[in-house]
Amino acid sequence: MRFEPLLKISNLTRDFSPLIHCITNYVTVNDCANVLLAIGASPVMADAKEEVEEFVSISSGLVLNLGTINSRVANSMLLAGKKANELGVPVVLDPVGVGATKFRLETALQLLESVRFTAIRGNISELKTLTLGVGAVKGVDALEDDAVTETNIKAFGDILKPFAKRTESVLVATGALDLITDGESVLGVENGSPKMAKITGAGCMLSCVLCAYVSAVVKSQSPFSMLETAAAATCAFGFFGETAEMNYRGIGSFRSALLDAATVLSGDDLVNCAKIKRI
Amino acid sequence: MRFEPLLKISNLTRDFSPLIHCITNYVTVNDCANVLLAIGASPVMADAKEEVEEFVSISSGLVLNLGTINSRVANSMLLAGKKANELGVPVVLDPVGVGATKFRLETALQLLESVRFTAIRGNISELKTLTLGVGAVKGVDALEDDAVTETNIKAFGDILKPFAKRTESVLVATGALDLITDGESVLGVENGSPKMAKITGAGCMLSCVLCAYVSAVVKSQSPFSMLETAAAATCAFGFFGETAEMNYRGIGSFRSALLDAATVLSGDDLVNCAKIKRI
Amino acid sequence: MRFEPLLKISNLTRDFSPLIHCITNYVTVNDCANVLLAIGASPVMADAKEEVEEFVSISSGLVLNLGTINSRVANSMLLAGKKANELGVPVVLDPVGVGATKFRLETALQLLESVRFTAIRGNISELKTLTLGVGAVKGVDALEDDAVTETNIKAFGDILKPFAKRTESVLVATGALDLITDGESVLGVENGSPKMAKITGAGCMLSCVLCAYVSAVVKSQSPFSMLETAAAATCAFGFFGETAEMNYRGIGSFRSALLDAATVLSGDDLVNCAKIKRI
Repeated sequence: MRFEPLLKISNLTRDFSPLIHCITNYVTVNDCANVLLAIGASPVMADAKEEVEEFVSISSGLVLNLGTINSRVANSMLLAGKKANELGVPVVLDPVGVGATKFRLETALQLLESVRFTAIRGNISELKTLTLGVGAVKGVDALEDDAVTETNIKAFGDILKPFAKRTESVLVATGALDLITDGESVLGVENGSPKMAKITGAGCMLSCVLCAYVSAVVKSQSPFSMLETAAAATCAFGFFGETAEMNYRGIGSFRSALLDAATVLSGDDLVNCAKIKRI
Repeated sequence: MRFEPLLKISNLTRDFSPLIHCITNYVTVNDCANVLLAIGASPVMADAKEEVEEFVSISSGLVLNLGTINSRVANSMLLAGKKANELGVPVVLDPVGVGATKFRLETALQLLESVRFTAIRGNISELKTLTLGVGAVKGVDALEDDAVTETNIKAFGDILKPFAKRTESVLVATGALDLITDGESVLGVENGSPKMAKITGAGCMLSCVLCAYVSAVVKSQSPFSMLETAAAATCAFGFFGETAEMNYRGIGSFRSALLDAATVLSGDDLVNCAKIKRI
Repeated sequence: MRFEPLLKISNLTRDFSPLIHCITNYVTVNDCANVLLAIGASPVMADAKEEVEEFVSISSGLVLNLGTINSRVANSMLLAGKKANELGVPVVLDPVGVGATKFRLETALQLLESVRFTAIRGNISELKTLTLGVGAVKGVDALEDDAVTETNIKAFGDILKPFAKRTESVLVATGALDLITDGESVLGVENGSPKMAKITGAGCMLSCVLCAYVSAVVKSQSPFSMLETAAAATCAFGFFGETAEMNYRGIGSFRSALLDAATVLSGDDLVNCAKIKRI
């Protein structure tokens, strides 16, 4: 279907080229930097406590990704997140593997207590863990029991809504069917390719794209809600995956093709690709 | 030649999808995660002392890679390795550049003293260094004098066998000709492409594939010896390289093609590719 | 135009295969390792204070890149740089984002005070910041006001020359038009593709290529000046980009094609590609 925000926000991102400060894991950091460049944003990766606040001060958005968190970097995330809140810089949280260890859960909960996030993106197991304050995640993938489907998306939405409301964040739970909620409405997004779960970094990259879209909207004072903005980012990134899948030969070339799609697809290409449903 | 374990173990890896916890270097970590996904395993990379033991507890295998080791992460490796031994989770050591500095050698020897490794994979210089407790390696590549050939593989096997026996580990020394020994038998594997030495990360990736294969065998209680399992991993990864080399245009596309081959080749494709010889 | 050093130095790099020790950021480190392998050099990445001096002792060149600097690694850089100076190992500085934060500027200035660099490569904003001791950089990209053009290259050369003289370093300021100076002469290099600014890591990779070229010249005691050597590296890397751009489909495949070009282009291919002008 035609989804106007896709056209507008992807163009805004290219026009305003927001600088996105990522404190992120060392596994997928290169893909994160490249996907930001591909969509017209500008990445900066820095994690030293001595400088993260200064980087936030010149940035339009901040991504905090727990992928390879340690106590030194957790402290930098806290400093950066608080500074971002002070300055009105939007912050996106990616709570990678948050249910897998106590340390991850405590780090995430401490961040949630001290920092207001504009958006939180994870798989459904990660978001359920944050919602309930406890959880069990097998590594960094969602549990199979937790798969969001057409049948249960409403029920999952009901579980996540109070958390979205309490944190004043838009939640993006990605999977075969993506669930997005701002605490009031729930959207389902079907864009994407099953191959995206077969490379490392698809989730991390989407969190960066989401932050860039949010930042472009805030920076340009455009009249899009964060729900629409999150949906636009999720559709766009999903469509990059659909495009990349067309000549699938394996995950090496797929990853490369995903970045190619992110580079060349414009708002005009994207605007009619959305597979969104209001739940 | 036909080598049945190749068919069986590569299928087991896809069926059991073992979670492999890697404490590894930040140079090739992305390739390590992607190659694990490509062969059907699931990667988790985490190195904080606060959580590595918990990650080991939910994992089927652990890889310790010294590529960019520092004292903080060395400590995490020690904790993770001991926990893995406690729980019967197989551990693979990749002693990158171990002969190059005192710090690396001491770290490796301390790990060997405290942790029992199911398999150790390195180049022949690295394994000789561990065997002799001293060494000289030029960076992270094997010394030319140390190249394993048809002529000297028996002699090299005799050098490594006592170390394999003492550590109860299968040793995999990779090069143009790979040498595998469990302390009793010695195998030579000729699969592979000379281009694999021309990208960064081929060794690191094989260590991960090896760990995934070992973990799949252990998890499924399959009746393969660790010698056979190590040979299967080495043949398979070598064959990925042979396949990737077919349209060689340089190391950028070769690296991508290597991951593609790892994604699409099934046990049926692999079973007849083995170039193994009992020495 | 024909530029003899391009032929000679790129061949020297393949013949002498210098080991290049990089203390660098975790964003682009994989590309740095691969580009060094592509041009025939050998990379080692290690950053622990316990071992960097030993790695320097067996290396032919050292790259210090501030991309994701923290205090632990800054200390290792200082140790490695001093050791390199002691041993006559050439050192290249890449002051990524140096004007963006006080911590980066102080770290860079402390390195400049304690270590003599053979070459310093950055964008023009970064080099101006080092020259003036203060600066404002938007993240890791050059400010638009700072773009070097045919019209202002002489003026920029005049700004940088005293800094080159004082530090006894060759300066390489890259952008659409690259400026190279040893404090006496100024060269302009037009090789390159605008797509290089659209991937992460082009600058970091050039710093590594530059270090490899410098190291090959020093190691082989070849009679090329550091100005010529820096120009050769800049032309060569720019030409890799021109070659990679030919089938441009997006930044994923471009990055891969850049490494392919670096792999397959020989001195004979490069020697006539130079677009250099003495200013």
